[in-house]
Amino acid sequence: MHLSDAFYDRVQAELVRGLADEGLDGILVTTPGDVAYLAGFFYAVTERPVYLWFGADGERFCLMPELDDEYARAQGIRAEIVTYFEYPGVVSPEQHLAAELTRRGRAVGTIGVAAALTTGALMTLRSVLPDVAWAPTGIVGGMRRTKHPEEIEFHRQAGAICDEMLAAGRSLIEDSLRTGAQLPTEGGLARHVIGFGTEAMYDRYDHVIYTTKLAGGLVYAGPNSARPHGLPSSRRLEIGDTLILSLGAAVASRFVESERTFVIGEPTDDQRSYFATALEAQDVGVRGMTVGRTCAEVNAECLDVIRDAGYGRFIRHRQGHGIGIAQHEAPWIEDGDSSLIEAGMVLSSEPGIYVPGHGGYRISDSVLTTDSGPERLTNYPRTLEENVIAA
Amino acid sequence: MHLSDAFYDRVQAELVRGLADEGLDGILVTTPGDVAYLAGFFYAVTERPVYLWFGADGERFCLMPELDDEYARAQGIRAEIVTYFEYPGVVSPEQHLAAELTRRGRAVGTIGVAAALTTGALMTLRSVLPDVAWAPTGIVGGMRRTKHPEEIEFHRQAGAICDEMLAAGRSLIEDSLRTGAQLPTEGGLARHVIGFGTEAMYDRYDHVIYTTKLAGGLVYAGPNSARPHGLPSSRRLEIGDTLILSLGAAVASRFVESERTFVIGEPTDDQRSYFATALEAQDVGVRGMTVGRTCAEVNAECLDVIRDAGYGRFIRHRQGHGIGIAQHEAPWIEDGDSSLIEAGMVLSSEPGIYVPGHGGYRISDSVLTTDSGPERLTNYPRTLEENVIAA
Repeated sequence: MHLSDAFYDRVQAELVRGLADEGLDGILVTTPGDVAYLAGFFYAVTERPVYLWFGADGERFCLMPELDDEYARAQGIRAEIVTYFEYPGVVSPEQHLAAELTRRGRAVGTIGVAAALTTGALMTLRSVLPDVAWAPTGIVGGMRRTKHPEEIEFHRQAGAICDEMLAAGRSLIEDSLRTGAQLPTEGGLARHVIGFGTEAMYDRYDHVIYTTKLAGGLVYAGPNSARPHGLPSSRRLEIGDTLILSLGAAVASRFVESERTFVIGEPTDDQRSYFATALEAQDVGVRGMTVGRTCAEVNAECLDVIRDAGYGRFIRHRQGHGIGIAQHEAPWIEDGDSSLIEAGMVLSSEPGIYVPGHGGYRISDSVLTTDSGPERLTNYPRTLEENVIAA
Repeated sequence: MHLSDAFYDRVQAELVRGLADEGLDGILVTTPGDVAYLAGFFYAVTERPVYLWFGADGERFCLMPELDDEYARAQGIRAEIVTYFEYPGVVSPEQHLAAELTRRGRAVGTIGVAAALTTGALMTLRSVLPDVAWAPTGIVGGMRRTKHPEEIEFHRQAGAICDEMLAAGRSLIEDSLRTGAQLPTEGGLARHVIGFGTEAMYDRYDHVIYTTKLAGGLVYAGPNSARPHGLPSSRRLEIGDTLILSLGAAVASRFVESERTFVIGEPTDDQRSYFATALEAQDVGVRGMTVGRTCAEVNAECLDVIRDAGYGRFIRHRQGHGIGIAQHEAPWIEDGDSSLIEAGMVLSSEPGIYVPGHGGYRISDSVLTTDSGPERLTNYPRTLEENVIAA
């Protein structure tokens, strides 16, 4: 679970070219995902800030709290380490940053910062670095939209783990039905599949790192599945339930999401109809992800399948979103994003149908876009026939 | 796991008084913790913004994505709900917000925002609400520093679960030793105790909610325990190891942290000496948490125990921090925080000793400050005699 120094050198060289293009004297990187992407340092996020700075000539350092120093070295961080003792500090982290930039003769000019920088941090930076102009830049976010081959390999491995997590969830239910035991609760099933994914990660990799989590999952059945962002509850699964397993896994913090809908027992006509529509929309959505189309256009075509089936009132969200170091990142497969699909993106296609009081239907794959068309990175069976759990 | 409407009414009344004191016409609340604190809405955090607005007269609404609507109602959110469809949207969430404020005649005056608001969001808000002046305010953070009685009850329940998680971790090791099985890995032990805590939560509460997690834990043994913020690894525990179980649990998102150091097998003289110093520092740190002292003063007194024992070079962090809806929040028990300890705070006392290549020693309790002195909310045994795991 480790990207090579050569990878980081390539990414940093691209960053430096971007700084030149935007006329910036440097950039101050402040979010965990961007720090991980550019320098290979993955850290526990607290109130203690981490500042990764690059000059336009490629000079770089990472300011971090002392307690992360040894851990950053063990990860092979691709930047010089500078530490401050603690937060908030008699001398603040930002004062340490200002001193370090001054020492290097870099406390002047225009330094780029991402939109995620907080207003509080910007106010502090302005006071300690009065000769610097701070310019908003989307340069790192832009770089992260398309993936390098080494990253795609990790996304692919995460996809395989996600597929196995789905199988583990299904097995738990089938085992209960076979032995006549109580069916699991939503929460119990969620913990089972997350535990399975996390174990798999520790079994397969020596060096486990992440920005937010290794494996995660939402499990909702019956009426709860009609709430796309609820939490798994203590409700026990029942025969007749529609069940959504919405799972994710990250290898080297390269995420994949995989979601499947199951029916426990013989499906009703309504369940068949909702399921068929969700599956068709998802498939149209995946096949639409070809290079050169707009995200908005792909989304509209996908959701039109649901609207045309007469279920438009059950739509609660867009088709999907980009995936990378973050579980959700640009581009957004939604009406408001007119950017073009490029080769090397990892995108989710996950249109959903949510029938209040009854249940939800959502099937999601993580899709790699290529010049020869979309490729699914998650491959667990999708059809109703395959995902009826016989009771 | 639910706070009453009366609780939220009281908190909102306090907010309105604060707005008057600061001369604000309203406040726009933008962080999950503050939204949960003020209106009782706990949500999955994504790129889709949630904006909770209060006017100086107590009028309020919460703008959220449509997919959270039903879930927010089910939680009994204490504010009117207004929705936008999706992110980024042809009409952006901020344009929806501007339209709603305009409709209510509130798109003018001075509106407070917390330091956590991003520069990107502020830029967007400025463009859609040109007649509003945005003023930084720490009002909600200030309110959250001291806890209401109903919150303290949840912190107390979380403390009991943390104590049980520690016992579950110790049992797993003892069972392995007794049966002659392999000792667990750090990762395996972490998953065991987190699973135990999460199960306990689902068993005890009908309605499970949180802002970041229900239960969490870092487990490090041997040399890994010398890296205070590393991740649990696939390294198996060994006889002779120093082991830190650093666990947390949240009931109604009211956190508690509890950490204990164990030695597997007969301790060496070095282990005894490091342990005794960490325990003494922690105890001095807890007893120092009396109303009216400064955080800096309490921290210095606590860390001086370690320095006076000749182990100052093994200090990697401050004594502790405040705890609430967030696992880490103000005040900071550190040299740079001169604020006064007040009754009703929940604070961690967790000084540590980290010996590179050997191991780490950290004991932490979550402490409630009261007018009659500090009270520990976590009570698992602390001494070396009690925490030697016989091998």
